Amino acid sequence: MRYHKIPDETVRRLPVYLRGALYLSRDGAVSASSKELADQIGVQPWQIRKDLSYFGDFGTPGVGYDLRSLISRVNKILRLGTGHKAALVGVGNLGSALLAFPGFHIYGFEIAAAFDIDRRKIGRRKAGVLIEDIASLGLLEARGIHLGIIAVPGSASQEVAGALVTAGIKGILNFSPCRIAVPRAVKVITIDIAMDLARLPYYVPGNRR
Amino acid sequence: MRYHKIPDETVRRLPVYLRGALYLSRDGAVSASSKELADQIGVQPWQIRKDLSYFGDFGTPGVGYDLRSLISRVNKILRLGTGHKAALVGVGNLGSALLAFPGFHIYGFEIAAAFDIDRRKIGRRKAGVLIEDIASLGLLEARGIHLGIIAVPGSASQEVAGALVTAGIKGILNFSPCRIAVPRAVKVITIDIAMDLARLPYYVPGNRR
Repeated sequence: MRYHKIPDETVRRLPVYLRGALYLSRDGAVSASSKELADQIGVQPWQIRKDLSYFGDFGTPGVGYDLRSLISRVNKILRLGTGHKAALVGVGNLGSALLAFPGFHIYGFEIAAAFDIDRRKIGRRKAGVLIEDIASLGLLEARGIHLGIIAVPGSASQEVAGALVTAGIKGILNFSPCRIAVPRAVKVITIDIAMDLARLPYYVPGNRR
Repeated sequence: MRYHKIPDETVRRLPVYLRGALYLSRDGAVSASSKELADQIGVQPWQIRKDLSYFGDFGTPGVGYDLRSLISRVNKILRLGTGHKAALVGVGNLGSALLAFPGFHIYGFEIAAAFDIDRRKIGRRKAGVLIEDIASLGLLEARGIHLGIIAVPGSASQEVAGALVTAGIKGILNFSPCRIAVPRAVKVITIDIAMDLARLPYYVPGNRR
């Protein structure tokens, strides 16, 4: 089954719905209305209904969404839950934090390989993952790794992106505060932490000095 | 000037527009169409026009947006550019990465204080910021600090959030993968890095094993 022309904003919210459904399900709920799901995750109920309507009819009027079915279908739409393997490049402070991050497993992700350029780090383990020489990046596709995470300084990010693409990576999560150029077939999602901080003052009255 | 009932999703995109306008402006542009801005940041042109229409009439048909005016007005809407000070709690790997992060200054942010519970860290400096004892958190409001950043393990996040609220913090950026409960007047934005990774496979064809 394929889905076409789904807005990026909808795709961005699907993991939010998935997480909300997982939380409600763990709390013992079997079904949830769009209102209950909305309260859990902080999105408007109409937005949830609209987003999910792109993928067919999920809910039952008056009953809500069957959580197990919702989880299973969103997992399928996002192609999650099948053990995605990612390679991390850059085991500095941020990279180390990502290796230790407990949240990836919820979505079936695993950082299966880590690379650095620093000889003092290569050969060591961090959070159970062996840190390899960045020069040995060439074999990722053969190792079942299709996703890359860039956590290097901005000045090195473009070179690392090129190496990941050459290694067969099709999707990149980029934490460096730089735009990187890749072939059209490769998807890059850039995380700019400062942008998340930047919308906070909007909600904080009287915080001007 | 006050703005009411702006959707959170619009507020979320405003820093993206701001960054795009700043980049175009640095490249020498004086004005930009919604199409040019859209190409820069990867958002649909109609979405930009719709979002900005909440705040009055920004653009000129056929000419586009005056970038200097756009930057100034978005800064004003978001209450940015006035030297916001944030306190970081937790100087582990993630906290250290945040202290060294070069992207905050674009939006006029400064991490002005850092706190940890670890006696070996207290009294040291990281990226120029003194690491203080978390027990001395009490004076943040008097120091002009209104925002908090939580980078502690999930098990400690609620306690830290409570201490930040007591210290007068009105907005919190939460990196722990836990929901935290705060009074209604305090705004919390939780960053779940795994959720950003979770939408990547959607765009990567044939990545199932």
